[in-house]
Amino acid sequence: MSRSIDLAVIPGDGIGQEVVAEGLKVLSAVLPEDVKLETTEYDFGAKRYHATGETLTDADADALKAHDAILLGAIGDPSVPSGVLERGFLLKLRFLFDHHVNLRPSKLLPGVATPLAGQPEIDFIVVREGTEGPYTGNGGTIRKGTPHEVATEVSVNTAYGVERVVRDAFARAQARPRKKLTLVHKNNVLAFAGHLWTNVFNKVAEEYPEVTTDYIHVDAATIYLVTDPARFDVIVTDNLFGDIITDLAAAVSGGIGVAASGNINPSGEFPSMFEPVHGSAPDIAGQGKADPTATVLSVALLLRHLGYETEAARVEAAVTADLTERASLPARSTSEIGDALVVRVAG
Amino acid sequence: MSRSIDLAVIPGDGIGQEVVAEGLKVLSAVLPEDVKLETTEYDFGAKRYHATGETLTDADADALKAHDAILLGAIGDPSVPSGVLERGFLLKLRFLFDHHVNLRPSKLLPGVATPLAGQPEIDFIVVREGTEGPYTGNGGTIRKGTPHEVATEVSVNTAYGVERVVRDAFARAQARPRKKLTLVHKNNVLAFAGHLWTNVFNKVAEEYPEVTTDYIHVDAATIYLVTDPARFDVIVTDNLFGDIITDLAAAVSGGIGVAASGNINPSGEFPSMFEPVHGSAPDIAGQGKADPTATVLSVALLLRHLGYETEAARVEAAVTADLTERASLPARSTSEIGDALVVRVAG
Ligand SMILES: CC(C)[C@H](C(=O)O)[C@@H](O)C(=O)O
Ligand SMILES: CC(C)[C@H](C(=O)O)[C@@H](O)C(=O)O
Repeated sequence: MSRSIDLAVIPGDGIGQEVVAEGLKVLSAVLPEDVKLETTEYDFGAKRYHATGETLTDADADALKAHDAILLGAIGDPSVPSGVLERGFLLKLRFLFDHHVNLRPSKLLPGVATPLAGQPEIDFIVVREGTEGPYTGNGGTIRKGTPHEVATEVSVNTAYGVERVVRDAFARAQARPRKKLTLVHKNNVLAFAGHLWTNVFNKVAEEYPEVTTDYIHVDAATIYLVTDPARFDVIVTDNLFGDIITDLAAAVSGGIGVAASGNINPSGEFPSMFEPVHGSAPDIAGQGKADPTATVLSVALLLRHLGYETEAARVEAAVTADLTERASLPARSTSEIGDALVVRVAG
Repeated sequence: MSRSIDLAVIPGDGIGQEVVAEGLKVLSAVLPEDVKLETTEYDFGAKRYHATGETLTDADADALKAHDAILLGAIGDPSVPSGVLERGFLLKLRFLFDHHVNLRPSKLLPGVATPLAGQPEIDFIVVREGTEGPYTGNGGTIRKGTPHEVATEVSVNTAYGVERVVRDAFARAQARPRKKLTLVHKNNVLAFAGHLWTNVFNKVAEEYPEVTTDYIHVDAATIYLVTDPARFDVIVTDNLFGDIITDLAAAVSGGIGVAASGNINPSGEFPSMFEPVHGSAPDIAGQGKADPTATVLSVALLLRHLGYETEAARVEAAVTADLTERASLPARSTSEIGDALVVRVAG
């Protein structure tokens, strides 16, 4: 295990700065004394875009590549046209660094508010493909702006891309007590991609006889996520379906204030990036109102990815304890929550 | 108003037969005496497919075309490979008959069970595009079954197709008390299609100054559907996003047992088709356990489409009354629920 962490930090826009500060506090507090943590802050996001027109240059990407991992707050601001920072920074980085495993755990902790009645059991992870599907930017427009405009979006799916993420998901399912993996797709309509996903899934399944498998159409999956979320253990799915169902999964399991994610390159060829699922929330930025929990849980994913399993578990235990008690506490600021978590991981 | 209805009836598979029988009972009961109802039953579905290999022939389509409207129960059976009946019958018909307005109302009635806590207010309709997007069957596969397979799915979006459904949605929003229309898309990632949808939406909005408009990404829309469904009045969206969010909408507003839909060709060039959102539920078929409410509400949409507004409202009122009292009644069979609704619409 490396006894130093060279971390790229991208606070980004809106509440990004605030939540990342708390994430770093917890990270520093939980690391053993002999682990040297070095951080380099980068200024990506709306401000940089307005000042220079840049979202992520080649030199930026080269600089980021040199780090062990990346911690991101949030990117996006209403002053920037929709899509510019998303495609110019977030997605660009996922593609450049081949972040094909987009990992999004959902766990409803006791006492945490959910819009669902009856506090159901929720404890699953979604393994979302991160580099293919309708996210590749393939497609185009003809006769733009005329009554005869035609716009296409091409979902690209390769056996190579599908197999590696399906394998990752099977390995994760195998390592969990319930050992259950559900493929979510829409293979009755999207027959070309659906056949590839289903076929690869069934083929890899043969190597994991202990893993129970299951297939659900994405539309039906949204029903189960609100009526029977306990049925899910590990879900593997396409980039777009994963985008949609993980927002819903976050909503039912405590809200996007506590939803963490990792954009992972399992080979380690490029650094992986960890970020809360939530956005930059400009409406509450700078007021100390943001919940840093999602970022702190993303730090736990980061620690686990770098091999610090004990420390990852300690961070998760601290968050669990904090959330469980939260309902009985008065409202706290962003940094007060961070401070409480620091005390817990140290203690 | 035509004083006769020439209806094509497609019971289909599983519970289809049972629920359609109740739908027809209610339809007969609510129609004024001078309206002649003629029905022709068609045998589409799994049985026909197994016997003849056919899903929908040219002659079938010609026969269906001659009717004023179509009432469908459910199509689909585990004995038929996934996609065969969906693409060979359901989608084929939507495309052949240019059912570009896929109408799906969601209303949570008092007393009706919802997975959401606190019985929120839910009363919105989704206008889902029905003939474009990723549903066109465009795309393909190369090197099938090899480690080098590439499968694509092409979402096709035309100004013509988007504008007509957006216009329909604006007209519906204008006619409702709240006059609010939300566009749901993913224009920050699917930039080609997203630009077309957003642009057309904003252009048509200028003609409807009284309608309040709103844009939400599809992932965020799933969050609002469980945390703040009251924010929605009318939603207009793409074929695939509509498929996904209407299942979720059905789940939160009483379940797919009460979710109705219309596949509408507003020009009347071809007959429109009305069907419950639920599937054929083979596990409970033939047991009198299916809830016919979704089919009966689809009959209300059918009546409204054919100009029988008073009768449509009477059916909806009967269902509302029935559902509101249901919690206090012992469980009833499919036909008992149908009988109760017949009494109510007649009374
Ligand atoms: C911001 C956007 C590009 C992104 C996505 O669609 O993947 C976000 O919704 C997410 O889920 O990380
Ligand atoms: C059965 C399937 C083809 C269909 C669809 O995807 O449109 C269904 O899910 C629906 O919503 O009507």
